[in-house]
Amino acid sequence: MLKLYIGNKNYSSWSMRPWVLLRQAGIPFEEVKVRFDRDADSAFQKTVAAVSPAGLVPVLVDGDLAVWDTLAIAEYLAERFPERALWPRDTRARARARSVCAEMHAGFSALRSHCPMNIEATLPQVGALVWRDQPAVRADVQRIVDMWTGLLEQHGGPMLFGEFSIADAFFAPVCMRLKTYALPVPAPVTDYIRRVGALPGVKAWVDDALAEKDFLDFEEPYRTAR
Amino acid sequence: MLKLYIGNKNYSSWSMRPWVLLRQAGIPFEEVKVRFDRDADSAFQKTVAAVSPAGLVPVLVDGDLAVWDTLAIAEYLAERFPERALWPRDTRARARARSVCAEMHAGFSALRSHCPMNIEATLPQVGALVWRDQPAVRADVQRIVDMWTGLLEQHGGPMLFGEFSIADAFFAPVCMRLKTYALPVPAPVTDYIRRVGALPGVKAWVDDALAEKDFLDFEEPYRTAR
Ligand SMILES: N[C@@H](CCC(=O)N[C@@H](CS)C(=O)NCC(=O)O)C(=O)O
Ligand SMILES: N[C@@H](CCC(=O)N[C@@H](CS)C(=O)NCC(=O)O)C(=O)O
Repeated sequence: MLKLYIGNKNYSSWSMRPWVLLRQAGIPFEEVKVRFDRDADSAFQKTVAAVSPAGLVPVLVDGDLAVWDTLAIAEYLAERFPERALWPRDTRARARARSVCAEMHAGFSALRSHCPMNIEATLPQVGALVWRDQPAVRADVQRIVDMWTGLLEQHGGPMLFGEFSIADAFFAPVCMRLKTYALPVPAPVTDYIRRVGALPGVKAWVDDALAEKDFLDFEEPYRTAR
Repeated sequence: MLKLYIGNKNYSSWSMRPWVLLRQAGIPFEEVKVRFDRDADSAFQKTVAAVSPAGLVPVLVDGDLAVWDTLAIAEYLAERFPERALWPRDTRARARARSVCAEMHAGFSALRSHCPMNIEATLPQVGALVWRDQPAVRADVQRIVDMWTGLLEQHGGPMLFGEFSIADAFFAPVCMRLKTYALPVPAPVTDYIRRVGALPGVKAWVDDALAEKDFLDFEEPYRTAR
């Protein structure tokens, strides 16, 4: 049985991606949740270092093989379960899906640092200030809006490449951020965010995140308590 | 014919990866060099925006299909030229190669920001100060050293996964940085850096970079002139 090591569901945007991918694709796996900590004698660090040299979550363990880093996990799963078509089947669409996922993997640093994922939180005031003061965040959101509206038009929805694919799993945490911080986006994007939120794999993750009730101050630049 | 859009060869670490990959694998392509600028009316921006919505180099253009972002380009090439075995042929080795490339794609931000690629420069004094003052750079280099020595031992060299693969192309710019800033690394790593530098694909890029002689102040935190 595949094992997926993840962090806190409320906070861990990278963990969310392969978890949602596996769940939404109906691939059975065992979840190993490792709570984030900042302790000197970190239990998180010990547990993760035992399976991955990079020391970060997510990590996928398949027998005695460990695959780390979200994009490598996605590619591994796409290869291992070809019948699930985790990438679009069309060569050109697949190339484009890989481009936007790689772009996500390395980019959008302003959005990521100013609006960290915090599924249970509702922070529209913070979002309004970030929006006013951070042009780089506005630029990141503009690129997301252009990308999503373009892909939804081109492929006709409901997901970015028609059917659900790795690309939707990759952008699911961005949907969470746009919602938590109530950043202004046009209607087609709001509708897409709603459809992503309604995917059973995403709903399951969000429900678990809401049930977690684990406030970690080092993940909370904008709140002092839940 | 494939077209690869790249930036300045002396500075553009991301451009170097697919260029070295194509060249070293013997895949014919046409290079389109777009000089970096910071002009209000940026020629770089216009040229790149015409082929890629992300507005960054590298971009691979195959007929009327544009693939952007280094990792997506690498995956596209691996699929399009299966006979070249750009990824290792063994499933487990391939998963590990993808893990280290994805780790590179999103990580090592301290090394990348404090030691930007500058092939023609020799900056051991800067390197010594960075090494003394930046623990995050030391941690990045430690991770690189562990990764490379582990892989070289496991696969027996000369490259990270035995034969040349995407992974070596991905880490070629790191070899350049370690050399420019003379960061202290153990002998097996120095030897690997030398072997990478001797690959015809890498030598060709470095020769072009040295011939460029194009000083761009916004890429030069440590020099006022060549
Ligand atoms: N590029 C990595 C990034 C993974 C990452 O940054 N993970 C964070 C959590 S989302 C982590 O493990 N942090 C460890 C810590 O905060 O101690 C990936 O895509 O998997
Ligand atoms: N994640 C991207 C990063 C590409 C990137 O950052 N490219 C830089 C050059 S190495 C660029 O185009 N910069 C544009 C500029 O500086 O104006 C990739 O892997 O392709």
